[in-house]
Amino acid sequence: MTQSNEQPQPVQVDDLVVGVLGGTGEQGRGLAVRLAVAGQRVVIGSRAADRAATAAAEVGHGVTGSDNSGCAAAADVVIVAVPWAGHGELLASLREELVGKVVIDCVNPLGFDKQGAFALPVPEGSAAQQAASLLPDSRVVAAFHHVSAVLLLDAAIESIDTDVLVLGEDREATDIVQALASRIPGMRGVYGGRLRNAHQVEAFTANLISMNRRYKAHAGVRITDV
Amino acid sequence: MTQSNEQPQPVQVDDLVVGVLGGTGEQGRGLAVRLAVAGQRVVIGSRAADRAATAAAEVGHGVTGSDNSGCAAAADVVIVAVPWAGHGELLASLREELVGKVVIDCVNPLGFDKQGAFALPVPEGSAAQQAASLLPDSRVVAAFHHVSAVLLLDAAIESIDTDVLVLGEDREATDIVQALASRIPGMRGVYGGRLRNAHQVEAFTANLISMNRRYKAHAGVRITDV
Repeated sequence: MTQSNEQPQPVQVDDLVVGVLGGTGEQGRGLAVRLAVAGQRVVIGSRAADRAATAAAEVGHGVTGSDNSGCAAAADVVIVAVPWAGHGELLASLREELVGKVVIDCVNPLGFDKQGAFALPVPEGSAAQQAASLLPDSRVVAAFHHVSAVLLLDAAIESIDTDVLVLGEDREATDIVQALASRIPGMRGVYGGRLRNAHQVEAFTANLISMNRRYKAHAGVRITDV
Repeated sequence: MTQSNEQPQPVQVDDLVVGVLGGTGEQGRGLAVRLAVAGQRVVIGSRAADRAATAAAEVGHGVTGSDNSGCAAAADVVIVAVPWAGHGELLASLREELVGKVVIDCVNPLGFDKQGAFALPVPEGSAAQQAASLLPDSRVVAAFHHVSAVLLLDAAIESIDTDVLVLGEDREATDIVQALASRIPGMRGVYGGRLRNAHQVEAFTANLISMNRRYKAHAGVRITDV
């Protein structure tokens, strides 16, 4: 038995099909290509099946495309990489397809003005908590918030030097997502707390954007002593 | 002239006197000893001057003690390391002493229950923004939120492997605080954004506490590609 304070046991995720809702966007395509290159079967979802198919063909590596409903139905693990503006509506519409599945929310509710990025207030506390509230029969995990889409999509970059903070209530689900993240070269999945502490992880993306401006970088996060 | 997008110029901070309000607490004493060992003149402040003097004598390295008002008056740079519960009241009482000074807020407004730590709501958005609101004539900077007091106080640990995120509106003030943080072996001060993005940095301490539990660690943060 796994005690709650132990290091996660190695988890086999090779056979899991990963769906990426919003997979035609930059973050979605970036995660799709990296996971596919790592050997994962990936389905890109989009509102329009033909756009999903086009994006999948561009990504290559065996990735297929489908409308969002078909993507959710076909996948074992579903990454939610849609814009914050459409987040709640989309998830509410996919509740049935997502029953029992691991749903990875990587959405950052941010606003932008002349001074840069800032966190938007979310009634549920965070995008991840909104997902958990809309999908009571799914296993919602928050992860992949801080990964730069620019780096993900740059095929010349083989290793992406960042930890992926993985938050959730369900130990088996967070272990699966940590293992998935750790399949991408350079990345490491690190447990980051419960969903009630997801807001600050999502909002921290605004700080990384400030650092990117100041230092002309693609800032990422590493956790030390773990 | 320093352009806003350039790397910070080297800033001389050797001659600055650092005051630590709440310097008898663990975080305060830890920062006091590390800065003093690095060569900084440090004054520990406390409500009672005699307790400050006792703590200063324990810390050694030339550190002196004073009541909070004397500490604020004597210092060029003042670190606010008091418990969140007394934060607003103390700062309001020191407004005059702190005029024109760099005030470093490292307070994390957190609650604790059986499931661990969580962020408390702050009407002003964050402890740092509360400080800025109470001290309109000071130069408020947010920093040192994530540094483990256990590590700071462990004399056997020579280098503390962490970046210090430094947030603020005043470039000269954030440059000073980055330089101060970088004086402590292993630490590096990194600009982390404006004060409106301080909440998530403060709240992220709750996530680090979750990691510490899970991994039996003293988790810290490094920013990559910067």
